[in-house]
Amino acid sequence: MTTDRVFNFSAGPAVLPVEVVQELREGVLDLDSTGIGILEHSHRSDVIVELFQDTELRVRTIADVPDDYEVLFLSGGASTQFFMVPMNVVDTSDLCEFVITGPWSQKALVEAQRFAATRVIASGADDAFRRLPEIHRQSDITTYLHYTSNETIYGTQFRSVPMQAEIVVCDACSDLFTRPISISEYGVVYASAQKNLGVAGISLVIIRKDLIEAGCYSIPAMLQYRTHRDANSRFNTPPVFAVFALNRMLRWIQRLGGLPAMAQRNREKSELLYQSIDSSQWFTGFADSDSRSQVTVTFTTGQNAADDRFVKLAQQNGLVNLRGHRSSGGLRASLYNSVSIEAVEALVAAMGEFEDLYPKPLQ
Amino acid sequence: MTTDRVFNFSAGPAVLPVEVVQELREGVLDLDSTGIGILEHSHRSDVIVELFQDTELRVRTIADVPDDYEVLFLSGGASTQFFMVPMNVVDTSDLCEFVITGPWSQKALVEAQRFAATRVIASGADDAFRRLPEIHRQSDITTYLHYTSNETIYGTQFRSVPMQAEIVVCDACSDLFTRPISISEYGVVYASAQKNLGVAGISLVIIRKDLIEAGCYSIPAMLQYRTHRDANSRFNTPPVFAVFALNRMLRWIQRLGGLPAMAQRNREKSELLYQSIDSSQWFTGFADSDSRSQVTVTFTTGQNAADDRFVKLAQQNGLVNLRGHRSSGGLRASLYNSVSIEAVEALVAAMGEFEDLYPKPLQ
Repeated sequence: MTTDRVFNFSAGPAVLPVEVVQELREGVLDLDSTGIGILEHSHRSDVIVELFQDTELRVRTIADVPDDYEVLFLSGGASTQFFMVPMNVVDTSDLCEFVITGPWSQKALVEAQRFAATRVIASGADDAFRRLPEIHRQSDITTYLHYTSNETIYGTQFRSVPMQAEIVVCDACSDLFTRPISISEYGVVYASAQKNLGVAGISLVIIRKDLIEAGCYSIPAMLQYRTHRDANSRFNTPPVFAVFALNRMLRWIQRLGGLPAMAQRNREKSELLYQSIDSSQWFTGFADSDSRSQVTVTFTTGQNAADDRFVKLAQQNGLVNLRGHRSSGGLRASLYNSVSIEAVEALVAAMGEFEDLYPKPLQ
Repeated sequence: MTTDRVFNFSAGPAVLPVEVVQELREGVLDLDSTGIGILEHSHRSDVIVELFQDTELRVRTIADVPDDYEVLFLSGGASTQFFMVPMNVVDTSDLCEFVITGPWSQKALVEAQRFAATRVIASGADDAFRRLPEIHRQSDITTYLHYTSNETIYGTQFRSVPMQAEIVVCDACSDLFTRPISISEYGVVYASAQKNLGVAGISLVIIRKDLIEAGCYSIPAMLQYRTHRDANSRFNTPPVFAVFALNRMLRWIQRLGGLPAMAQRNREKSELLYQSIDSSQWFTGFADSDSRSQVTVTFTTGQNAADDRFVKLAQQNGLVNLRGHRSSGGLRASLYNSVSIEAVEALVAAMGEFEDLYPKPLQ
């Protein structure tokens, strides 16, 4: 494969390992010597049924998923899970509690409000989302807790589940399978695939079986988890290619040593970048040290013009997608599973080059 | 590109033109010399924004879409449109009328029943769905009419909109853009892409603007058409690759001469196959002559063992996916846009070979 691939720090859809890109290209031409490409196989064919089974098995192996959990592959992104979870699992008499760490948890809250009473038990808003909010345990038992494990706009990340509840719902879009996870702590944990697990179009949803059983029956079939459980995630024509990409990413994760290896790799990358930020005259981190994410590093020069100049210099060095989110500005490097240590080294080198070229303050 | 591609008659996901497969493979490696593959571009990047704009423009050009219609690219397949259309556009006081030509229209009916009163105004069930039912115009004005333009299980197809209504809702999953279409006759017309328009993961939805405006506000944001209109189909991370494939299929359709050329091509293919069936000692068509589909040809030997034997012989000749749907049995050849005339000629030759090898009756 000959191409000038750049170092891509996109927040998602994100870069893929070059080996996985190669496998996907081969699959598009001809899947497993069937004479038919992955895009052209019926979702009822043996080879696709096996692909789905193999993918589920790899998820179960990688995350040691207990038998009382289902592994589902669903379309519509995490934005669909924002409403599908409460629509299925809560009664109007339930109270859903939310930890707000930025816009994503806020969006999940807005959707849950359509189906049950909600309460914000902690919010980082007063700190401009620079730090994870402290959670003061409520005296009564919490039925339903939603939180976002990693905040991609502000670069904060929970190290562990922040509070116990009967049903812990975790939006892990940007850090699922970037480190070991104990599935039994969750009621539902989900992630769209395009950050750490492949390409846009499919979400991995791991959900406790009793929540599926107790789910609402009056909602559309496509919105009931049981529909997809009963059909092994092939109730209607699923986005087969996105499941294929997930499969090949899971194989890649396994080849590298599974979740412990991912965690080690992601820790190394983020430490290298944070050290560079902390020792810099120009750059400062956005998130407070003890709230920092290992996969979303937010930083800035403190000056829009200098941020722009750095983005331009980085681009000249083949480093792209380093602008912060539209709503926050500044700079952001997403260090998801597929981002290589070489990419981070190149970024650190560019930061050094910037400091040499433009002694502070920038004129 | 060197591979032994078979002749694939799958009902969906379906075969793609080999040129399109090649374009998709190139895009996976590097999109438009950006150094980033189509799978790894942010959906907010200029190149993807342009891709969506270009795709919409091509849809508008190919189908001459009037200005008072929106063109949306949505995930979740036609099964999601089954409930999303009534959820958005009907009141509980409305009456939704349905033409039932098989399981797909039946499924759409079941979902609509959750949101409004429904009435079946015509059904092919008494004829085992061998023919399109006659529709006796109701005396009162019809508010909402749903029908399935092409029935992929039984192989029947409407030549035109069967009845006028204030809101004509057409599930055109298996024949949208296989022939010219007059969009202004519809309130909503939709098709998932994996049959005639690319790959699984995206649906093309063409909807009259007033229906979006009048739509329900209390349902989840992801289920409101206005959400996707306001965000140009990029409210959340969309299945970018499936839109890319749609774009390349639309270009291919345009290169071949647009919808008139598709209609000509599909007519030729189906006529060739129906002639072969009608002149055969072994094979008979399932659908009545005047209800026959140009893209879904259902036929049978009338004997399960002989159908199986033909499927095996066809497979030896490199012809695959000729089994009928699980629920109907028999044989089926889907002749969607991408199926070549050579594929149909090879199928006809295999039918001739079968007749020579096994003089009727089969022992």
